[in-house]
Amino acid sequence: MKNLLIAQSGGPTAVINASLAGVAEAACVSSRVDGIMGAFYGIQGVLNEQFVDLKKVLKSSRDSSLLCQTPASLLGSCRYPLKPWREDEEEYQKLVGIFRKHHISYFIYIGGNDSMDTVFKLSEYIKEKEIADILVAGVPKTIDNDLEGTDHCPGFGSAAKYVAATVVELERDISVYPVPGVTIVEIMGRNAGWLTASSALSRINGASGPELIYLCETAFSEERFLEDMRRVMSRKKAFLIAVSEGLKDENGFYLSEQVQTEQTDAFGHKYISGAGKILENLIRSRMDCKVRTAELSLMQRCAAHIASETDLKEAWMLGGKALQCVLDGRNGEMASIKRLSSNPYMVEFTSVYSGEAANREKKVPKEMICSNGCDVNEKMMDYLRPLIQGERSVKYENGIPAHLILGENLTGKMA
Amino acid sequence: MKNLLIAQSGGPTAVINASLAGVAEAACVSSRVDGIMGAFYGIQGVLNEQFVDLKKVLKSSRDSSLLCQTPASLLGSCRYPLKPWREDEEEYQKLVGIFRKHHISYFIYIGGNDSMDTVFKLSEYIKEKEIADILVAGVPKTIDNDLEGTDHCPGFGSAAKYVAATVVELERDISVYPVPGVTIVEIMGRNAGWLTASSALSRINGASGPELIYLCETAFSEERFLEDMRRVMSRKKAFLIAVSEGLKDENGFYLSEQVQTEQTDAFGHKYISGAGKILENLIRSRMDCKVRTAELSLMQRCAAHIASETDLKEAWMLGGKALQCVLDGRNGEMASIKRLSSNPYMVEFTSVYSGEAANREKKVPKEMICSNGCDVNEKMMDYLRPLIQGERSVKYENGIPAHLILGENLTGKMA
Repeated sequence: MKNLLIAQSGGPTAVINASLAGVAEAACVSSRVDGIMGAFYGIQGVLNEQFVDLKKVLKSSRDSSLLCQTPASLLGSCRYPLKPWREDEEEYQKLVGIFRKHHISYFIYIGGNDSMDTVFKLSEYIKEKEIADILVAGVPKTIDNDLEGTDHCPGFGSAAKYVAATVVELERDISVYPVPGVTIVEIMGRNAGWLTASSALSRINGASGPELIYLCETAFSEERFLEDMRRVMSRKKAFLIAVSEGLKDENGFYLSEQVQTEQTDAFGHKYISGAGKILENLIRSRMDCKVRTAELSLMQRCAAHIASETDLKEAWMLGGKALQCVLDGRNGEMASIKRLSSNPYMVEFTSVYSGEAANREKKVPKEMICSNGCDVNEKMMDYLRPLIQGERSVKYENGIPAHLILGENLTGKMA
Repeated sequence: MKNLLIAQSGGPTAVINASLAGVAEAACVSSRVDGIMGAFYGIQGVLNEQFVDLKKVLKSSRDSSLLCQTPASLLGSCRYPLKPWREDEEEYQKLVGIFRKHHISYFIYIGGNDSMDTVFKLSEYIKEKEIADILVAGVPKTIDNDLEGTDHCPGFGSAAKYVAATVVELERDISVYPVPGVTIVEIMGRNAGWLTASSALSRINGASGPELIYLCETAFSEERFLEDMRRVMSRKKAFLIAVSEGLKDENGFYLSEQVQTEQTDAFGHKYISGAGKILENLIRSRMDCKVRTAELSLMQRCAAHIASETDLKEAWMLGGKALQCVLDGRNGEMASIKRLSSNPYMVEFTSVYSGEAANREKKVPKEMICSNGCDVNEKMMDYLRPLIQGERSVKYENGIPAHLILGENLTGKMA
């Protein structure tokens, strides 16, 4: 008996469940997989043996289709890093024991950087201990697109599409009054500016898009920013600025950390203010200009109703690819996307060793950022454009998108 | 020669352009209307004679269809209240002069409370001065749903649909970790809580929705709030709270104003903090609980990509109704919706005198709010449910929604 166990981890995306469906559906048609199990709350749930029979959850193609339009992880998530096994072998022994107890031969972990670290460590342990009956693989996901070893990462394209579509709608919104005003759009990304860069896609059909785009890869200078502002204001009344939440100053400190340490609110608590609000206050104190901030907040990572068809399909395909890796007897691989060309867009689904992706961050390279530091260039646009293409028809029930959620009895029910 | 002039005013909504299309398309098929003109920037643009030939902008049904999926006002907006004519007649004389110069017999103003005040004042002036060749009418719009004289207001249903869909997605997002945490969702509405109430629609397919919903109609008590929090936390780990931006304390002061007056930031500027952030800080200082805030910000009023089909259709119909009023020789009417039944949903398109709507605010009545003050009841759900029904297939170009925008040469171009 060879069972498959699937778990999800890390922050939510719009398509992490499409990868789950991809693994499960590939397993359904394989004669080499018996049971298909899910673990709740990532590797933490594996350690706690919190399992669910995924064949009971995904009973029909309708369930699968609902799953693919349900944002965040159906199976829950965790932030639980494994210690290196040479320091603490107990947890690894426990995991292997649990796998064997439940006849789990294949373990697929869908997640970001930390999850690929888990895949890597687990596969190294399995190799070292010459364990022959357990194989693990990873499926990448992150809206930040900061994973190495893959051209881009499932979850990013849908977040980028949400950002681009929202910015083009915001541009309509802010353009209605004949008065000067600036609207700052704060976009997720602590250390990588890919998602902020995707705000430039709002120009794709001829809209202006943000007049200024600041990525966290470029050190932020107050004086240069005020100069940029003056330049734009001299030719434009109302405009948008896109900024990464992880904007840092020239000394490498997050802008948001600075206010945090200086301010307390009415309740005596430290103020946690985003980069957007910091710039808003800077503009308000230094320039004669109406200013406000729109934070795209959690919405940008869970807006499954406007997911990218390309992203959904790739997330699903990489699920199947990861399963193929373990069925082929390869241990510790991460399914990945290799781009063959951007126009026409062509990719190959391949895999890399999880060690190549784990514990590294892929930042936006300098050659995709304009030399003035306040915009991205055509190279970036060529990279981004294919990733937001296509819309899947979303099933609505009673006026809102239908989701597949797991009830307390751990069987699939709709909500 | 009898020309029609249309203008838009007030804050953006997802369907204010559907009303513009509704007026223009009804005019196209009327033998009693010659030219169809648009004024930029509302009544301010009328005074400046900033006109555009709408027949040149809307050349085909494709243009109209793009217009209906373009958020905010195609023609721009203004915040420009007319003074009472008995105090300052000059502007009224100027307006009448401009209307006559351009052979404008019909003026349709699409907007909210202030715009209906303009329709009201202008029509009173016309009546008093026995001006026989000019007729005015209003088409209501506001995401706040606070206009009197109509069962509900175009723009509200789409914003409500965005709120409900977003809250159901946020619920997926916040449910993934097995740790306690509260997420506050701040929703627009300074004095009326209709839109915040619509967060309850996220429960429509079985999701939990916000555990606590605070409307600005109910005085906010810090102690009661902390009690509510404790009650929910005793049975639930991760949950949502929905709050109106216009939450007021028991003395009638906006929560947001209190911090504004006490705090300055690193640049010495007053902190403008929303009601959500205030509650976030209150929770952080008084409870042992992870907390964060998501402000739906400008997105909730311009998310045309998820507009309600019901709302779009009604916005369009009211445009036609307003034109019918002036063609019938009725002056100063506001097109309005009369609800005949909620289930099945049936309405009648009618009109009321603009004086009935102008300068009044329709707040959420007590009988739609739970007696504990932290939720809405079935009566509210029955009222809200029909308004978010239906999805119109949105045309995407290159991965983002296509919009109709006016280029600098004032002819329609796509972006």
